[in-house]
Amino acid sequence: MRVVSWTLAELAGPLSAAVGDSPDFRVLRPVAVDSDDPGGLTFCESRKYLRQLTAHAAGAVIVPPGLEVDRPHLIASKPRVAFETFLTMCRRPLPSRTGVHPTAIVDPLAEVDATASVGPYAVIEQGARIGAGVKVFPFCYVGENCVVGADTVLYPHVVLYQDVKVGARCVLHAHVTLGADGFGFRWDGRTQRKIEHVGGVLIGDDVEIGASSAVDRATAGATAVGDGVKLDNMVQIGHNARIGDHTVICGQSAVAGSSVLGERVTLAGQTGVADHVTVAGGVSFAARTLTTKDIPDPGVYYGVPARPLAEGLRIVARLPHLHERIEKLERGE
Amino acid sequence: MRVVSWTLAELAGPLSAAVGDSPDFRVLRPVAVDSDDPGGLTFCESRKYLRQLTAHAAGAVIVPPGLEVDRPHLIASKPRVAFETFLTMCRRPLPSRTGVHPTAIVDPLAEVDATASVGPYAVIEQGARIGAGVKVFPFCYVGENCVVGADTVLYPHVVLYQDVKVGARCVLHAHVTLGADGFGFRWDGRTQRKIEHVGGVLIGDDVEIGASSAVDRATAGATAVGDGVKLDNMVQIGHNARIGDHTVICGQSAVAGSSVLGERVTLAGQTGVADHVTVAGGVSFAARTLTTKDIPDPGVYYGVPARPLAEGLRIVARLPHLHERIEKLERGE
Amino acid sequence: MRVVSWTLAELAGPLSAAVGDSPDFRVLRPVAVDSDDPGGLTFCESRKYLRQLTAHAAGAVIVPPGLEVDRPHLIASKPRVAFETFLTMCRRPLPSRTGVHPTAIVDPLAEVDATASVGPYAVIEQGARIGAGVKVFPFCYVGENCVVGADTVLYPHVVLYQDVKVGARCVLHAHVTLGADGFGFRWDGRTQRKIEHVGGVLIGDDVEIGASSAVDRATAGATAVGDGVKLDNMVQIGHNARIGDHTVICGQSAVAGSSVLGERVTLAGQTGVADHVTVAGGVSFAARTLTTKDIPDPGVYYGVPARPLAEGLRIVARLPHLHERIEKLERGE
Repeated sequence: MRVVSWTLAELAGPLSAAVGDSPDFRVLRPVAVDSDDPGGLTFCESRKYLRQLTAHAAGAVIVPPGLEVDRPHLIASKPRVAFETFLTMCRRPLPSRTGVHPTAIVDPLAEVDATASVGPYAVIEQGARIGAGVKVFPFCYVGENCVVGADTVLYPHVVLYQDVKVGARCVLHAHVTLGADGFGFRWDGRTQRKIEHVGGVLIGDDVEIGASSAVDRATAGATAVGDGVKLDNMVQIGHNARIGDHTVICGQSAVAGSSVLGERVTLAGQTGVADHVTVAGGVSFAARTLTTKDIPDPGVYYGVPARPLAEGLRIVARLPHLHERIEKLERGE
Repeated sequence: MRVVSWTLAELAGPLSAAVGDSPDFRVLRPVAVDSDDPGGLTFCESRKYLRQLTAHAAGAVIVPPGLEVDRPHLIASKPRVAFETFLTMCRRPLPSRTGVHPTAIVDPLAEVDATASVGPYAVIEQGARIGAGVKVFPFCYVGENCVVGADTVLYPHVVLYQDVKVGARCVLHAHVTLGADGFGFRWDGRTQRKIEHVGGVLIGDDVEIGASSAVDRATAGATAVGDGVKLDNMVQIGHNARIGDHTVICGQSAVAGSSVLGERVTLAGQTGVADHVTVAGGVSFAARTLTTKDIPDPGVYYGVPARPLAEGLRIVARLPHLHERIEKLERGE
Repeated sequence: MRVVSWTLAELAGPLSAAVGDSPDFRVLRPVAVDSDDPGGLTFCESRKYLRQLTAHAAGAVIVPPGLEVDRPHLIASKPRVAFETFLTMCRRPLPSRTGVHPTAIVDPLAEVDATASVGPYAVIEQGARIGAGVKVFPFCYVGENCVVGADTVLYPHVVLYQDVKVGARCVLHAHVTLGADGFGFRWDGRTQRKIEHVGGVLIGDDVEIGASSAVDRATAGATAVGDGVKLDNMVQIGHNARIGDHTVICGQSAVAGSSVLGERVTLAGQTGVADHVTVAGGVSFAARTLTTKDIPDPGVYYGVPARPLAEGLRIVARLPHLHERIEKLERGE
């Protein structure tokens, strides 16, 4: 593998930083603050980080103005942001080649832009349209009449069933499923009869969806995920749900059928929104929170059922002492 | 894509409905009640739906007898059921072709019925049997000695390890895993020693399993999922569990090893049944409920640990007020 | 399929057991204690098992010394351990063949050991190294610069993105994803900007990872899973987390970004560890437990938030009675 390196002087410009020391010192890669990698560049933005830095031997560090360090460093007003820029410079996309790999099976009635990359053993069905600059990695299945917008990446093993529209610049991670049937059955006295789902899925621009997450197709119409939404791994979005722009949903959370989330909602890990519930824009859920009712007001919520954070925390904090307090009263003290 | 349409007169028969108005009005697809699609047919069964309908412009609507509407409509005693029939008429199966695709790899010792469809890049191992009318979509792996019953559908990326028997008319969604090893280890003082799992998986008829769900193989014998069972996405069924007929398990729920669920159990989303637990037929769990003990009586349960619904709700409802009540007593009021 | 069978006399040696009766009796397979399989061998280690055994007709049984049974049997000091040895003897690996299948796509800059097996439709990217005796099953994607240690098994549909190192003798089940981007975004006032993840994943030796589980790549450095760790199905390990040796994590649990688990931690099903949390070695979580804070002391924990087991159970047990006790006090009794 080709090894890339940068001198601190070379990095100063791209990272909007000043060279604090040793402009010719070479770094090879970003590292955590507790790394001992002599070729690593890390960042330090607090006393806590400084302690870790001092105890370890990362080759160079990005520090804020006024912080003294004993090793090669860059000075930036926001070290973390400078470090994130360095991360972006170090990114190495998975290997892919423009064009359709000879083992990919593209239906004659599908359209693949000449600048797109369709990897080995991908299957693109009739009526599908793959936009400019799209990367379809191995083993992806892009079903009938699906549309993949410009510069979107489908990592290996993504499945789009049918009538799934994905916007531009999206990232779909391995084993994502978009457009599987919604979960709807009706007991007819003898069996659970399937309610057919004939709608689609509509994913906005700049959406990222984590490994093994799923967005079900709508009964009719479309399950809709807004622009800029970020879904972590193993997130489930039920049929006909609507997720507002720039909403962020962490791992192993679920939004059940027909629920509506506003813009910039944040759901922490392992949270849930039951079906047919509306959650206002700006709402945040702490980890493991669940609501089965509408949440009309922005704010942070916690618990099962979801309560405003301060109230939820208070209830939990008092819980261990209730018994003792009652006991004291019972003893007549 | 071919566009199909129906006049309301044409739909009246199949939907067991009367034409209320405009028999020649053409509809193209089912839509939600809040759709403005002029070619859409929706349904209305309540005041709430009527308000949404009136505020929107769906082309036509199915209404119950006696409900006045100002647009083309059908009249049915159960509008929702008539609508579901229309959904079924509109269903478009994913494209597949009878026969074995030339890129599929079928072991000479496997049997594939002549009426089955085995898609591109499917792998069928020795001793496997694929029944009449079965559809195996791309990238499925049907392992050694697996049996897939008539008219069952394996959507892309389904994995059956070995000795997995799937009944007739089942639907296995993308990324389902049946027959992976159960999770069993024994600490031997130095390492977690693997307990081998050499049993199989037995799936009944008319079972549907959602995207990225998994049913583990048994230690010995079989993990058994009964007829008519419906599992949503990301559901985990542990080794040697037994799931009774017509049971419904919603997303991100789990039944741990060796547990037994009776017939027509309903587990809402994100619920759990610990290992070696028996849950009676007819039990329902509200969302996020967990039991680590047997539940011998039918009924609805709620909470962690699972309690009868009314009791569980009461506890939760009183929780925020306990502190204030105790405080009042402490003040001697 | 070839049918293998053993006489009890043949099994006595490998199972460290004595033949209690009928040395020539032939058994075909391990079965559960409630099986009626006349060719089945089961085990019995308690009164409860004995009742089940007596009510059923498994052909033969392994019993402890001194337990009288009415059918062919073996006598072993630890019947369960002897049975587990029998399980190991009965294990039938999924079919695979040494060498690279002609449909596998191996980059010229990848190295595959001559004793490894690379199955149909696997993709191995540049710089990847596949060790001795490794089995790569169909549809696996082994990305750029990934390393797979000796005798590790990648079941169908495993995805390793890039810079993922897996140790020796590991088992990765179907649909596992290692090395997808960590979940990190920064709101810049207009959009959620992606924080690139350029680190890797480091999996120790003797690790098993269940179906549809995921370990995200680090921001920088590596997300690290120690030797002998066992992860069940649908487990999520966040970016930069570190999981100590021999830790066991059950289904649908998650360890969020940058958290550190010590050695021999046990997390039961549906549990969670929030981000940037440290959990000491020897800690166990009961099912559904969640911590958002460090847990410095070994022991068993329960609840949300995690509390020492006895305390957690006490709180839950008293909960239903608090209201009645307060009511009594309110009435002045």
